[in-house]
Amino acid sequence: MALPPDATVADVGEFALIDALAPIFEQGEHVLVGPGDDAAVLRVRNGHVVVSTDLMVEGRHFRRDWAEASDVGHRAAAQNLSDINAMGGRATSLTVGLACPPDLPAQWALDFARGFAEECATVGASVVGGDLTRADQVMIAVTVIGSCTVSPVLRSGAEPGDVLALTGRQGWAAGGLAVLGRGFRSPRVLVEAYRRPEPPYAAGSVAAEAGATAMIDVSDGLLAEARHLAEASGVAIDVRRDAFEVPEPLVAVGGALGADPLGFILGGGDDHALLATFPEGAVPAGWQVVGTVTAGSGVTVDGADYEGPTGWTHF
Amino acid sequence: MALPPDATVADVGEFALIDALAPIFEQGEHVLVGPGDDAAVLRVRNGHVVVSTDLMVEGRHFRRDWAEASDVGHRAAAQNLSDINAMGGRATSLTVGLACPPDLPAQWALDFARGFAEECATVGASVVGGDLTRADQVMIAVTVIGSCTVSPVLRSGAEPGDVLALTGRQGWAAGGLAVLGRGFRSPRVLVEAYRRPEPPYAAGSVAAEAGATAMIDVSDGLLAEARHLAEASGVAIDVRRDAFEVPEPLVAVGGALGADPLGFILGGGDDHALLATFPEGAVPAGWQVVGTVTAGSGVTVDGADYEGPTGWTHF
Repeated sequence: MALPPDATVADVGEFALIDALAPIFEQGEHVLVGPGDDAAVLRVRNGHVVVSTDLMVEGRHFRRDWAEASDVGHRAAAQNLSDINAMGGRATSLTVGLACPPDLPAQWALDFARGFAEECATVGASVVGGDLTRADQVMIAVTVIGSCTVSPVLRSGAEPGDVLALTGRQGWAAGGLAVLGRGFRSPRVLVEAYRRPEPPYAAGSVAAEAGATAMIDVSDGLLAEARHLAEASGVAIDVRRDAFEVPEPLVAVGGALGADPLGFILGGGDDHALLATFPEGAVPAGWQVVGTVTAGSGVTVDGADYEGPTGWTHF
Repeated sequence: MALPPDATVADVGEFALIDALAPIFEQGEHVLVGPGDDAAVLRVRNGHVVVSTDLMVEGRHFRRDWAEASDVGHRAAAQNLSDINAMGGRATSLTVGLACPPDLPAQWALDFARGFAEECATVGASVVGGDLTRADQVMIAVTVIGSCTVSPVLRSGAEPGDVLALTGRQGWAAGGLAVLGRGFRSPRVLVEAYRRPEPPYAAGSVAAEAGATAMIDVSDGLLAEARHLAEASGVAIDVRRDAFEVPEPLVAVGGALGADPLGFILGGGDDHALLATFPEGAVPAGWQVVGTVTAGSGVTVDGADYEGPTGWTHF
């Protein structure tokens, strides 16, 4: 369906817009009943499912002037797919709810849906249901369902003697966000990293098979996530500054903004890197050891308290 | 955890509030990993799951001055549990996201969660995950997962010769909403029906086992839902006015507001009654035949177009 240019969501109407959205979401073979009924029906192979949910609110988690609708779609999907990745699983199915003001361009909703569908397609997951309703602010609610081939990797399994390891870009999105916040649009590679994170989707299940003892995705900030692991596992974690090679674009942004570029790495989220603990010697290829796990509690950097921001707070 | 009286969500903080919310949600035996990790893990018995999602927005789907927080929790859960009911299934697990302004009383969030948990407990379902974030408006995003013991009943299976049947209270919530909209608080039974719908949770799976050919829950309006069934099944549906006994409180409200009380029944939603089609003779006890299915298209009332509102529109 071709929408009239400049048509708003209210112009097009709920049901016509849903009709336009539905074909954007291709259905995998495991989807017995897709969108359009009271519920979707999914075939499940191995007797369990893994489920996670997230909200994204305009002005809080994204700005329409900082990213294209399709970018917001990519990010919304990536953020949720990453939660299944962090369990060592594979996402199979998602639902997506969109609340929006009636004057939202209908094209924005379609472009958002296309970006969302594209990101899901990178892991072979289907969008099996959704909801569309009116609100003062754009809000996106996503739930993702997946499964694991080995036992899910929880946050609570880290043990003294394990090493802490990271895979995926880390700090790039935070650098991009800092740039956008000052009204700039470059370095472009960082801005793009913020707009469309590239989570290491293949790495979660590899880590699970390699024997990761605990795992989490870095959505709120590396040290904040390390603290979640430490608290859930009842251990202490020390992160080593010299374990991180600060990429050139972050050095440039740090210089321009007068900030320590390592701060983007230690405090930044939104790249959806994976942080996991492994028994020493079990760290798979592609992961970088960035710290150690010991008896005790709390998170330190080079053995001392860290003074900078460690992550995002919602209130 | 006892919250300070009059504390807002911002006062309490995200993580402390989540800590206070978590014990409200008891976990069933099928929940292998509950809230608190990147994802929940659920045991699934029969090789498939049924999934649905819904958004509720303050000012649009509920008003804080028209219902207690616990009522809003009951309604949010009921609306989603009802979607699984309408597939002929049983809900097992839900996720719930709450977006709210920082000045929302933290007690509101707790009371909402208690109402939500109570409603889920009526069908034995667990709340296995959630998200909490900041927005200008209270928004609630729920996803429900369930399963069916027989084939799910879709909207698309109605056939000419079937009868249309209804179970559950219908029109009461619409009557309550009309009363609240005029600033009244009685008849109390209708206001309560709006605040806490009582969907016929046991009826969906009974209908599926009895051979229902199509089924939907009445959330937007009886005639609007009949239209969804007619369109999905490629049939015509005629609803009979004299099939409905108009309950006394609706007669009273109709008289007071100068409205046809049957309008609440034909156009009202929010009770989450079930509307289904059955082969003649297969209608289970507790269901009332209210119409017929014939070849053709569209929905009529006593053979003619219906002039009143047939349901809710979101934009």
